[in-house]
Amino acid sequence: MSPVKPRFGGVVPPVVTPLTPDGEVDAASLERLVDFLIEAGVTGLFVLGSSGESAFLTDARRDRALDVAVRATAGRVPVLAGCIETSTARVIERAEAALKLGADATVVTAPFYTRIHPVEIDRHFRAVRAAVDLPMLAYDVPVSVHSKLAAELVLALAADGVVDGLKDSSGDDVGFRQVVLGAAGLPGFSALTGHEVVVDAMMLAGADGVVPGLGNVDPHGYVRLVRACEQGRWAEAKTEQDRLTRLFRIVDAVDPATAGGSTRGVGAFKTGLALRGVIAGATVSAPMRELTAEETRAVAARLEEAGLL
Amino acid sequence: MSPVKPRFGGVVPPVVTPLTPDGEVDAASLERLVDFLIEAGVTGLFVLGSSGESAFLTDARRDRALDVAVRATAGRVPVLAGCIETSTARVIERAEAALKLGADATVVTAPFYTRIHPVEIDRHFRAVRAAVDLPMLAYDVPVSVHSKLAAELVLALAADGVVDGLKDSSGDDVGFRQVVLGAAGLPGFSALTGHEVVVDAMMLAGADGVVPGLGNVDPHGYVRLVRACEQGRWAEAKTEQDRLTRLFRIVDAVDPATAGGSTRGVGAFKTGLALRGVIAGATVSAPMRELTAEETRAVAARLEEAGLL
Amino acid sequence: MSPVKPRFGGVVPPVVTPLTPDGEVDAASLERLVDFLIEAGVTGLFVLGSSGESAFLTDARRDRALDVAVRATAGRVPVLAGCIETSTARVIERAEAALKLGADATVVTAPFYTRIHPVEIDRHFRAVRAAVDLPMLAYDVPVSVHSKLAAELVLALAADGVVDGLKDSSGDDVGFRQVVLGAAGLPGFSALTGHEVVVDAMMLAGADGVVPGLGNVDPHGYVRLVRACEQGRWAEAKTEQDRLTRLFRIVDAVDPATAGGSTRGVGAFKTGLALRGVIAGATVSAPMRELTAEETRAVAARLEEAGLL
Amino acid sequence: MSPVKPRFGGVVPPVVTPLTPDGEVDAASLERLVDFLIEAGVTGLFVLGSSGESAFLTDARRDRALDVAVRATAGRVPVLAGCIETSTARVIERAEAALKLGADATVVTAPFYTRIHPVEIDRHFRAVRAAVDLPMLAYDVPVSVHSKLAAELVLALAADGVVDGLKDSSGDDVGFRQVVLGAAGLPGFSALTGHEVVVDAMMLAGADGVVPGLGNVDPHGYVRLVRACEQGRWAEAKTEQDRLTRLFRIVDAVDPATAGGSTRGVGAFKTGLALRGVIAGATVSAPMRELTAEETRAVAARLEEAGLL
Repeated sequence: MSPVKPRFGGVVPPVVTPLTPDGEVDAASLERLVDFLIEAGVTGLFVLGSSGESAFLTDARRDRALDVAVRATAGRVPVLAGCIETSTARVIERAEAALKLGADATVVTAPFYTRIHPVEIDRHFRAVRAAVDLPMLAYDVPVSVHSKLAAELVLALAADGVVDGLKDSSGDDVGFRQVVLGAAGLPGFSALTGHEVVVDAMMLAGADGVVPGLGNVDPHGYVRLVRACEQGRWAEAKTEQDRLTRLFRIVDAVDPATAGGSTRGVGAFKTGLALRGVIAGATVSAPMRELTAEETRAVAARLEEAGLL
Repeated sequence: MSPVKPRFGGVVPPVVTPLTPDGEVDAASLERLVDFLIEAGVTGLFVLGSSGESAFLTDARRDRALDVAVRATAGRVPVLAGCIETSTARVIERAEAALKLGADATVVTAPFYTRIHPVEIDRHFRAVRAAVDLPMLAYDVPVSVHSKLAAELVLALAADGVVDGLKDSSGDDVGFRQVVLGAAGLPGFSALTGHEVVVDAMMLAGADGVVPGLGNVDPHGYVRLVRACEQGRWAEAKTEQDRLTRLFRIVDAVDPATAGGSTRGVGAFKTGLALRGVIAGATVSAPMRELTAEETRAVAARLEEAGLL
Repeated sequence: MSPVKPRFGGVVPPVVTPLTPDGEVDAASLERLVDFLIEAGVTGLFVLGSSGESAFLTDARRDRALDVAVRATAGRVPVLAGCIETSTARVIERAEAALKLGADATVVTAPFYTRIHPVEIDRHFRAVRAAVDLPMLAYDVPVSVHSKLAAELVLALAADGVVDGLKDSSGDDVGFRQVVLGAAGLPGFSALTGHEVVVDAMMLAGADGVVPGLGNVDPHGYVRLVRACEQGRWAEAKTEQDRLTRLFRIVDAVDPATAGGSTRGVGAFKTGLALRGVIAGATVSAPMRELTAEETRAVAARLEEAGLL
Repeated sequence: MSPVKPRFGGVVPPVVTPLTPDGEVDAASLERLVDFLIEAGVTGLFVLGSSGESAFLTDARRDRALDVAVRATAGRVPVLAGCIETSTARVIERAEAALKLGADATVVTAPFYTRIHPVEIDRHFRAVRAAVDLPMLAYDVPVSVHSKLAAELVLALAADGVVDGLKDSSGDDVGFRQVVLGAAGLPGFSALTGHEVVVDAMMLAGADGVVPGLGNVDPHGYVRLVRACEQGRWAEAKTEQDRLTRLFRIVDAVDPATAGGSTRGVGAFKTGLALRGVIAGATVSAPMRELTAEETRAVAARLEEAGLL
């Protein structure tokens, strides 16, 4: 619809970071995962996002994971690098690392931990972009940073060339729609949804693509889904989405009485990948815990239902 | 009242980190500030807390600030080091740096950015303490980390020797009271309140001390206040507290339409210190902004009212 | 798709309650509004919802508004009556009034003001349904009642015949999708979305209909939109939705520095209806305020753009 | 300290509303409770507050409870009537009933359920006070109404004679302190804290009195506590408060896995009163539940520890 295609679109999974039992980056597993995703047809990789355990990894491990992923990708698709830090100077350090390691874009949230005014959020994005010459996506994730990026803010940043797109994990579909409508005249702007269970709906609403955590486990499903959307085969898209929405219930396999949301998501995705033989093990970072044998069986049962085992 | 005195108590200001105009640590100003506080009679220093802009400083600047503060203190009072990071491995790195640089204790929050269960928060504190052999205070600051440390959790960690005290910035005086009561039988436990405008009240309720951001600006007032509390001169304590509560309104000098809570607090404290001649300038980290000339005049007016200029 | 059609579906506007300048129900305007909506093709009316100012009206005015609406409707479409009260006994009183005044169903939220456990929310819905023999829709509106109806709770109540559907104003499209999927085997269940700017998307995701506040102002647009969805003309649906999403910006005509969300929504809708000549005036209940002349002009400008004036 | 004493002060329990097994007001029990409290030395009664189950009672039951309480009190102490409703016109109806039934003051919250701007909250209080000629206390209870009354708003309303005091259940001791300081020059203003476990602290900070839910169960303790505070016997006050803080744990006797905060509070208080023989039974309103036999035994054990059985 726009004169220039969005810079990023389609299926861009937030790649999990496989770990060895002692918590180091499992490079061989990460390389296999990158191949698995690209061969399934994804159109980009988002490394060091929330699903990538960015907030759990030391800087050395972050750098290692990004380095491995960029080399394994070898230019086949763009690699977006999460630069998830509390404030401006710290984000800039991460963006500099992303540039040096060969990422194609940064993904940046509002400051967190701090108590920050929208005017300061605006200043934050401008300062990061001015410091590091890489395309940047704004990452709207209030469940983690506890502030919401207003549609007006994102559109103003986009109009000034500060951000090249939005990765929306806010769950606020009303705001997302306003961004999509407002960005109609901004060539190259990428509106990506992070909500893997409403991709058909958000694509109909004008999203350019999706960043599905579950896409680690079933990238083929998401590629089929997004292609159906792009080609206007909405009934097929809905059917595929419904299947994936049922598969998403692997996160319910994890006992919420002893595990937080991060563990339930990342733990279930990694367990699914280990069960499918893509990565060597399902270790997650402290203080999260690995899934129990019973929880793992429950994940396996749902993968079987979905025809993935 | 307890058989062994709390390890940390009295007035322990969360030391601001003076910055040069280009955002580096202003070591000379920090040294003067350390002397100013210790000469006023404070009984400890909390470096790299929220008021210390920990979340805004790169690791190199954090290390520099802690190093300067420890050397300037030269053992006159204990130095507590904020180790404020998103999750276990990252906190451990900061705690190792604190140990190496000579801090006397760490101050550690619940994980943030992540979505974490209380069971995981418990595991987090235990893992950090097991990794680094330094006394540790739990830092309860839901306004920043968006989870609350339950009284039961803090008391269980204290009973097991994991934490040596609590720095409470939750504003939940009911929970704080429960911790104080529950810790009665735990020798050496330190219950510190971070709420500088109700110190008299919290000391009456059993606090061992206070971590007052405003104590950067008027340490003498907080020393008088806490001594009055410790000696049971409650009416005097209240009078001193009321004076300090009025002085606290320097944070209202900063326009809330263009500055968040971090800026209003740290910005006002630094401006007060610069006006009093203790530090060279009132630079704050991006994306915060320095106070305007008009805001600075308003701070000055309140300092004058309080007899501090 | 289900063996039995949903009981309620299509376009069910939450009818605003026109008021005289002194705050009484303007019966003549309400009658005209009912005719306007039904003639546009809506398939139901939701009276005394949030847009109907239920929380602002005395019981006498609530009864008056419902009575006028039921009589004016005269059986042409079903009338759903909001029974929005803090707790069980009070909701039952409202449901009894709804039954007596001839409503076809009740719409009931979780208790509010109180601090209530999900087990108690479950008990609440069961008690109301047992007391009053009318079909009941669960109304999920966390922005007002500050608790979220979990998908499992709604589905369990539906399976037991307690609720006949869901009116979802939660903005949680993930949860809504789970309800839609889970209700596939529940004949007659009605899944209605309250989010007027993503109707195309939610219909694709399986919604049976929409309860659009903006549908007061442009019912013809919503009827066209939902028909396009029902007939699988998704590209047309999206175009109509985009037009309506732009029209929704009439709520931005109201200054957020002096008016809350209730005023911005209801005030803008009533102003639009008054400008279109459907109702006599745009009076809203205290402590809300009527739109200023300038704000009214802004609403008018957007109606003109949309071809509605 | 102020030239004119606060209008309301000391111990003003939020009187629970005893119910018969079928949920009607148990007038005989309420009369005994009123006598029990007044004979213990309380200086006022707050009827139809949160502890009085105001949000759970039909208007008829509200009127009945207030009528019984006013008659039983017979002018011995002032009776404050909660007028807890969603918005202006509905509060005014309740305030009119309070006036007619002989209450001495109203207690009014910000609007709730609605989405309201502070400017509208200000207008709300002014409209209620203009409509009904009774002294009015502002009731700050964000846990229920989900907005906080700013200190500036309360002080502005007080300066204009709209409110005569504040009943603070916000837990924000910083804001409370600012109100107390700001009200120093407002003769007759009453600053009451609702936090029963920090009364010593809040009285030291300048509170005029307390509205303790637990004061239903142990009014003698609260009377001793407040007298000690008023006479500057702070060490004694702290000892009494510590005893009451331990007694407050009766609310922990109720299983939080099956009961919300309302049930835990009101249920425990009523059970304590029934065990002490003051009221006939511990029935609570639907959808709350009565305490189990095991929970009741746990409450009894704590009453025994406290010497109340």
